[in-house]
Amino acid sequence: MNAAAEEAAWTRKDLVGIEDLSREEIELILDTAPQFVAVSARESGIKRVPLLQGRLVVNWFFEPSTRTRTSFELAAKRLSADTLGIAASTSSLVKGESLHDTLANIEAMRSDIVVIRHSYAGAARILAERHSSHIINAGDGFHEHPTQGLLDAFTMREHIRRTREDAHAGLDGVRVAIIGDIAYSRVARSNIWCLTKLGADVVVCGPRTLMPPRVDEMGVEVTSDLHHAIGEADVIYALRMQLERQQRCLFPSLREYIRLFRIDNESLRAAPAHALIMHPGPINRDIELAAEVADGRRSVILRQVTNGVAVRMAIMHLLVNGPGEQQTRLTARDTDEPLC
Amino acid sequence: MNAAAEEAAWTRKDLVGIEDLSREEIELILDTAPQFVAVSARESGIKRVPLLQGRLVVNWFFEPSTRTRTSFELAAKRLSADTLGIAASTSSLVKGESLHDTLANIEAMRSDIVVIRHSYAGAARILAERHSSHIINAGDGFHEHPTQGLLDAFTMREHIRRTREDAHAGLDGVRVAIIGDIAYSRVARSNIWCLTKLGADVVVCGPRTLMPPRVDEMGVEVTSDLHHAIGEADVIYALRMQLERQQRCLFPSLREYIRLFRIDNESLRAAPAHALIMHPGPINRDIELAAEVADGRRSVILRQVTNGVAVRMAIMHLLVNGPGEQQTRLTARDTDEPLC
Amino acid sequence: MNAAAEEAAWTRKDLVGIEDLSREEIELILDTAPQFVAVSARESGIKRVPLLQGRLVVNWFFEPSTRTRTSFELAAKRLSADTLGIAASTSSLVKGESLHDTLANIEAMRSDIVVIRHSYAGAARILAERHSSHIINAGDGFHEHPTQGLLDAFTMREHIRRTREDAHAGLDGVRVAIIGDIAYSRVARSNIWCLTKLGADVVVCGPRTLMPPRVDEMGVEVTSDLHHAIGEADVIYALRMQLERQQRCLFPSLREYIRLFRIDNESLRAAPAHALIMHPGPINRDIELAAEVADGRRSVILRQVTNGVAVRMAIMHLLVNGPGEQQTRLTARDTDEPLC
Repeated sequence: MNAAAEEAAWTRKDLVGIEDLSREEIELILDTAPQFVAVSARESGIKRVPLLQGRLVVNWFFEPSTRTRTSFELAAKRLSADTLGIAASTSSLVKGESLHDTLANIEAMRSDIVVIRHSYAGAARILAERHSSHIINAGDGFHEHPTQGLLDAFTMREHIRRTREDAHAGLDGVRVAIIGDIAYSRVARSNIWCLTKLGADVVVCGPRTLMPPRVDEMGVEVTSDLHHAIGEADVIYALRMQLERQQRCLFPSLREYIRLFRIDNESLRAAPAHALIMHPGPINRDIELAAEVADGRRSVILRQVTNGVAVRMAIMHLLVNGPGEQQTRLTARDTDEPLC
Repeated sequence: MNAAAEEAAWTRKDLVGIEDLSREEIELILDTAPQFVAVSARESGIKRVPLLQGRLVVNWFFEPSTRTRTSFELAAKRLSADTLGIAASTSSLVKGESLHDTLANIEAMRSDIVVIRHSYAGAARILAERHSSHIINAGDGFHEHPTQGLLDAFTMREHIRRTREDAHAGLDGVRVAIIGDIAYSRVARSNIWCLTKLGADVVVCGPRTLMPPRVDEMGVEVTSDLHHAIGEADVIYALRMQLERQQRCLFPSLREYIRLFRIDNESLRAAPAHALIMHPGPINRDIELAAEVADGRRSVILRQVTNGVAVRMAIMHLLVNGPGEQQTRLTARDTDEPLC
Repeated sequence: MNAAAEEAAWTRKDLVGIEDLSREEIELILDTAPQFVAVSARESGIKRVPLLQGRLVVNWFFEPSTRTRTSFELAAKRLSADTLGIAASTSSLVKGESLHDTLANIEAMRSDIVVIRHSYAGAARILAERHSSHIINAGDGFHEHPTQGLLDAFTMREHIRRTREDAHAGLDGVRVAIIGDIAYSRVARSNIWCLTKLGADVVVCGPRTLMPPRVDEMGVEVTSDLHHAIGEADVIYALRMQLERQQRCLFPSLREYIRLFRIDNESLRAAPAHALIMHPGPINRDIELAAEVADGRRSVILRQVTNGVAVRMAIMHLLVNGPGEQQTRLTARDTDEPLC
């Protein structure tokens, strides 16, 4: 996509879900991220860029999180933004204030980006519609976790470009098997939307009780046969098993789940040798994913984490500055010196 | 007030209560704030000034707070200070250490300003008397919340100057009606002291059970008749109703309170058309203040929040640097560039 | 020790315990700290040095702490590092992830130094062995608290150098009495290792039930007679009494403990007039240490806190940059300007 097309494609104030995004918008984000990988993965001497200098990024998390909250905080800091964390437990919500009123107050102190994680599906959207800050959805109930979907697609594409030695390869025709608890996974939902829009061939696999109704209408193949799902997969994406589900009798037993759906050296015999292993973390080791596989040569699980910071930098930069800005600024100061 | 008089007026190490301040000191703070509004409300291109560079501001909150804690943190950051938050729950207090010992330890690490909120009336004062840091009281029990009183007076004065097109207008003769739970409100107490010192004409209004003893000795008019209170008011200041009071039978019922004291379009018919609506937040919507009024054209509730950061910047700057300093420094670097 | 010898002495990736360190390594740390005292205690105009600019220091505390966590955070900030706090309660550990997996994820986001406090003795070591970040042990169960031992030795040496007017004096032959709960104190353990390696003459004193087995094999004298212990002491180091121990019947009664082991004006009659009073904090006033002594002229308890920041700066700097670096950089920019 050329620069003019990119700019035309992007008019977003917020990132609330991948369901809203066009293929062009997704590709713009993925195309903006590599330069930030150089910063965030320290593949260049630059540790920080001044693209959000003087801006305020607020992390507003209502659910516990290390990985995602930290990733957003580092992304903001590496863009030279100021960061502010609001812990839900110490916040005005204790005093019965609504999300809207709390956000209006935060905005009155001049926030630029507000990153929100909330157990209510749709929380990010209703805030985005009424408020002027750039809202980024860091997970809303069982609905979406769009930055996870984008960093996963970026990691798949990065790997494919490297192994195929084709700097322009996309995900068209790439077969991705998503395994596990599809019904209650915002990660699965964001990945399905992201990957199908990018032309990938997605198959979802898990116990029937953990499949959402009408999942086939999302443009994916559905199966309960793991060997079939991974038989021709280029990417095998294991979801985290929410262990509390079992108590609600949504699947027969953990032993049964492991026997039928665990990704381990045994089940991987059915998969192509080149198949990549991914997981959104945190892993339940030896439940949905064997330790031997999580730590194995095919796994890019930690690369997902590294890329997560870069993809979030790209998203924040695009929301605040729009496309077509960063190129100039980054090359203007590509020295070994920190830029702050 | 001229510069020489300003400098003479200010010898404060701490801000523990408005009861201590002279009219000249209050006016110095209000006169120092406008330039920081330009920074904090982003009305200029400057997002940060270096007035507290290398200084350490410690936020030490024993009660939950989003608005006030965040406001102080942003004020410190926009002055280029380092900030450090001490959560009461994770602090040495768990280990039985006294406030004095904890503060002595913080000071041994070289704190410049310590912002404290504590449920004990007088906490800030006893710390200020014994320790060398600049102590700012962010609320001590039912006693005072002086930065709230100052930001409220600043917001009233700003509005009056704008609407009267008089850049030197003060609050002399301005009639302010404070409505609600006066007895248990540190906000009311700080406002009463601040406004009466500035020459305003203050009337307090609420159920008799929520009036402090001898409130009339504070130089205010006391009434339980809302229509009388707001009948000639230039400013109507609704206090937050502490809903737990009702359980202690301090007022008959919430329905009764709403009928007699709520500020809504109905009760506002008794008030002048120009009367300003204020509230310290967080609002109990449709209890002490109707949503239609809180979000209406007369309300400056969010402007209070914006100004709060600026007034706190002014206070921190005055405590550390004294008056007569900032003018030079701000104009020396009034570029679009962040100054850090 | 000359510069070449210093460089040869230091090849550490981590600081997990003083038991591992050679005398040369300990002395290198103590010799590196004074220039940071100038920064951290504000004895020079410099408030910040750029030695860790662009680096990421992660504070990962599983036990409540104000003093130590704050000290590390300020040390990192005064070296210009970025800091990130991970609260154990909000972390992935809630979701059942192992320490190793959480750290691998933090590292995937490019951490440089990870400071960990954990109730499990050996936690820092097992992480250090498997991960590439520089790990600093901020307390592991009853095992070690090495930065406390180092800051204590530094404070003793600083005082002795000043009073003896000998800029090269060490701790050889200095008699240190450590009083209290030796068995369950990681502070005692780190101090014993540190001081005996530096040639000090250490005596430990407390109830027999609070002595660890085979403590004499650590090269210290053991006694239950306070007067004997402090009779010729140059330094008297009172440990914090963990009051919950009493409930487990490990010592007869608090009154009995106070009678036999409290450091107060009465018991101090047995000690030399020049004996220094130290304590790791937080103090149980009038239990292990009388208030009159804690706040008295012989006490360097708050100086320990001030020095703690500087010693931690020295350790972080040495771990990341190695010896022989800082001299140049500090003198190159020894202006009154903040260096960030």
